[in-house]
Amino acid sequence: MPNTPSETVHTDAVAHDDAHQHSYIANNTKADYLKRLRRIEGQARGLQRMVEEEKYCIDILTQIAAMKKALGAVALGLLDEHMAHCVAGAVRAGGDEADLKLKEASDAIARLVRS
Amino acid sequence: MPNTPSETVHTDAVAHDDAHQHSYIANNTKADYLKRLRRIEGQARGLQRMVEEEKYCIDILTQIAAMKKALGAVALGLLDEHMAHCVAGAVRAGGDEADLKLKEASDAIARLVRS
Amino acid sequence: MPNTPSETVHTDAVAHDDAHQHSYIANNTKADYLKRLRRIEGQARGLQRMVEEEKYCIDILTQIAAMKKALGAVALGLLDEHMAHCVAGAVRAGGDEADLKLKEASDAIARLVRS
Amino acid sequence: MPNTPSETVHTDAVAHDDAHQHSYIANNTKADYLKRLRRIEGQARGLQRMVEEEKYCIDILTQIAAMKKALGAVALGLLDEHMAHCVAGAVRAGGDEADLKLKEASDAIARLVRS
Repeated sequence: MPNTPSETVHTDAVAHDDAHQHSYIANNTKADYLKRLRRIEGQARGLQRMVEEEKYCIDILTQIAAMKKALGAVALGLLDEHMAHCVAGAVRAGGDEADLKLKEASDAIARLVRS
Repeated sequence: MPNTPSETVHTDAVAHDDAHQHSYIANNTKADYLKRLRRIEGQARGLQRMVEEEKYCIDILTQIAAMKKALGAVALGLLDEHMAHCVAGAVRAGGDEADLKLKEASDAIARLVRS
Repeated sequence: MPNTPSETVHTDAVAHDDAHQHSYIANNTKADYLKRLRRIEGQARGLQRMVEEEKYCIDILTQIAAMKKALGAVALGLLDEHMAHCVAGAVRAGGDEADLKLKEASDAIARLVRS
Repeated sequence: MPNTPSETVHTDAVAHDDAHQHSYIANNTKADYLKRLRRIEGQARGLQRMVEEEKYCIDILTQIAAMKKALGAVALGLLDEHMAHCVAGAVRAGGDEADLKLKEASDAIARLVRS
């Protein structure tokens, strides 16, 4: 596969404060997420090869369903940690930040349910 | 990113007859699918960078939802072509093959709905 | 529970040719679908009672998830029969009707995946 | 439609402490939820009539997708209120109850994503 120089993903959502680092992901689970995402990247490459070689369509669909499930599982894991640390922290601190974090989390859940 | 030699995805479903080539994907749409899957691979790499740099969790979740939607759209496109060519062809030919193809397609749809 | 006279559901989709009867649903499966839908109606009533009595929110959510799954299973069953009879029949007859039925089915699948 | 005496839904989840009343649902939103659930019950009855009269399968599928969406929207609304009141309250109180509530909420989210 050739280099894909513009692999960066830009969305409005990513326009978040980049200087703001979040250490809510424990180091051991961080390594685990990276491993799972590398595997998902490999699945995306495997899918390209399957389409390139015109593999049987149903097999490609099975791979896509597996990949969506893997992504969904990563999302649920990240959401758990986010609620247990970031949201819970804001709730304990109280004030507008708590409401904002709760609203943000429920919007994220709604997006996941629809995706 | 270093080489990931074992990027191949092996599942039972892929144990399909590899010699059997399927030319149901028209060349112009094939290039389009490959482009979309390359973009999805880039999103998978972008996600790793976001986790590595501990970007804001909600932004990561937004990216995952976008990636799941992109995968779902690819799956629906492939399914359409599969039904219009492979399944319709088997139905016209008749016999057990038609029943098999219809069963296979509905199982694939069920997996997509749940993924 | 009081009478709910206007229980009829009106949507654009239902504005379909009402005179056109579809006997694709075999009588034995028709009774099965009706039984499952009556059960789903009972779940909808059970949900109202749970909200009325302010039952624990997580238990209500569990019921809603079960009800969505039951609806999804009914939809997949109906879709299978529709493809095996209506779509396959149109494909065998050929012409524009085949393309229309395939397009209709894939739009319905896309709606189910997103719902 | 005949009486359906056993419309009550029994699941393990409902085996929750029935004496424990939850007033987290504000009265105005409670009336709104009841209204939406009555509408969903009406949709379930409409579906039975459509199957009974053998209406066009695609129209039935459209109704089911609409009903699943309506149920999903009710679930997301209830989940929001649950997190803002019950979970946030437990987090402020601290201790094991907070962890339990967070775990319960994330399990409920996982069930919704899969349903």
